[in-house]
Amino acid sequence: MIIGFIGFGKVSQNLISLIKSDDITFMTSVEGRSQRTIEKIKDYEIGVADTFKEVAIESDILISANSPKSAIEVAEKYGKYAKGIYLDLNNISPDTTFEISKFTPNLVDGAIIGKIDSAHPILYVSGELSDKLMFLGKFIDIRKISDNVGDVAILKLLRSSYTKTLSALLIESSELAKQHNLENEFFDILSLTEGDEFREKSLSRINNTLSSSKRKSEELEEIIDYFEGSDLTMVRAALKKLSR
Amino acid sequence: MIIGFIGFGKVSQNLISLIKSDDITFMTSVEGRSQRTIEKIKDYEIGVADTFKEVAIESDILISANSPKSAIEVAEKYGKYAKGIYLDLNNISPDTTFEISKFTPNLVDGAIIGKIDSAHPILYVSGELSDKLMFLGKFIDIRKISDNVGDVAILKLLRSSYTKTLSALLIESSELAKQHNLENEFFDILSLTEGDEFREKSLSRINNTLSSSKRKSEELEEIIDYFEGSDLTMVRAALKKLSR
Repeated sequence: MIIGFIGFGKVSQNLISLIKSDDITFMTSVEGRSQRTIEKIKDYEIGVADTFKEVAIESDILISANSPKSAIEVAEKYGKYAKGIYLDLNNISPDTTFEISKFTPNLVDGAIIGKIDSAHPILYVSGELSDKLMFLGKFIDIRKISDNVGDVAILKLLRSSYTKTLSALLIESSELAKQHNLENEFFDILSLTEGDEFREKSLSRINNTLSSSKRKSEELEEIIDYFEGSDLTMVRAALKKLSR
Repeated sequence: MIIGFIGFGKVSQNLISLIKSDDITFMTSVEGRSQRTIEKIKDYEIGVADTFKEVAIESDILISANSPKSAIEVAEKYGKYAKGIYLDLNNISPDTTFEISKFTPNLVDGAIIGKIDSAHPILYVSGELSDKLMFLGKFIDIRKISDNVGDVAILKLLRSSYTKTLSALLIESSELAKQHNLENEFFDILSLTEGDEFREKSLSRINNTLSSSKRKSEELEEIIDYFEGSDLTMVRAALKKLSR
């Protein structure tokens, strides 16, 4: 079996490190790649084709792991050649997943949850063809969400709407506590019910959110756009909060 | 040393069970009490005075543990007789604490966090005189918040504003997930970062909040009243959410 990669960043590299089997060979191309990426590819001692088209044609599983921006272009160019499975790992929105599906008859949408370079990342997949990926469970924690292509992308939005709104709440509550000189005590008393790591985790979320509030706001806007029509009272409040 | 009780519910009963010392005697009165409470008091084999006034005069630590409603009346009647410490455990608001302080020169405001009938409740106290209560640390986990009477009540509001707003967020996110047939998956994926108990804890919070949404809304209104002037975007959204 051949697993081919379009894109050779951390996701691809880590998958190669995790999937060790005599039955599986890996493949990519150096077509149009930077010298740095070419050196990286050499380190991994995998098959190298002249073109990505060739990679797409040869692969039983073709993995697109580039960036959300390039996901559609890659799908449009190579999706039609993927006769086995086309697995998109570009962290795309549900709408982009839908776009891509037009060019990729064999699409499975996936997402790696947790740090990709951790020893135990989890691979979420959805789409009917994802059944054919479950053998990867020998190498990586893989979980099928449903038969519907796009459900992984929706699940990521749901998760993101929760965590970002929670961060907005943490910002508000901790500011309120600070105004009353009770910030430490606030984290202490909540640790009793929320767990010992509550303070550390919350402070890291607060700092993270405040230091990239523009990007988080944009992500909240995307979430609101996508779920339009549902009751988004809390998510909208989070957007308002972060936009201040 | 004498510890006297006005009110003989679970809080008082559990404190008596936890505080075991030859140097400490307990005291209450049956004045105007129901037959059921009188029987209960007999079970505990503690000192019984004819009147609560007598209890107040005799006690080194007078504990008022009744209900938020009766807190002011009890303080007005007996606060002036408490020459040692007057410890209020009525779960009152910061404003009520301020009211009570007019009648109780020796006020310490306290709150028991966690289930009162658990083996390890935590007693939060504030006020200058709370230093004199720290010897109770031999029997119960007691934590001084600050020298300011009222800070325990404020801390409770801060905690409540966080947990109630979080519940509103959980209601919104889980409804959104349900609409996309991804409710289970939503709880699963968040358990990875929020801890193994996330699902169980969240469902219990959601049910709890939905089954008493009127009371929770009223509590949120009190919180908003008290912190008026601060940015309460998230708390106000929670109130809006629960009022639907």
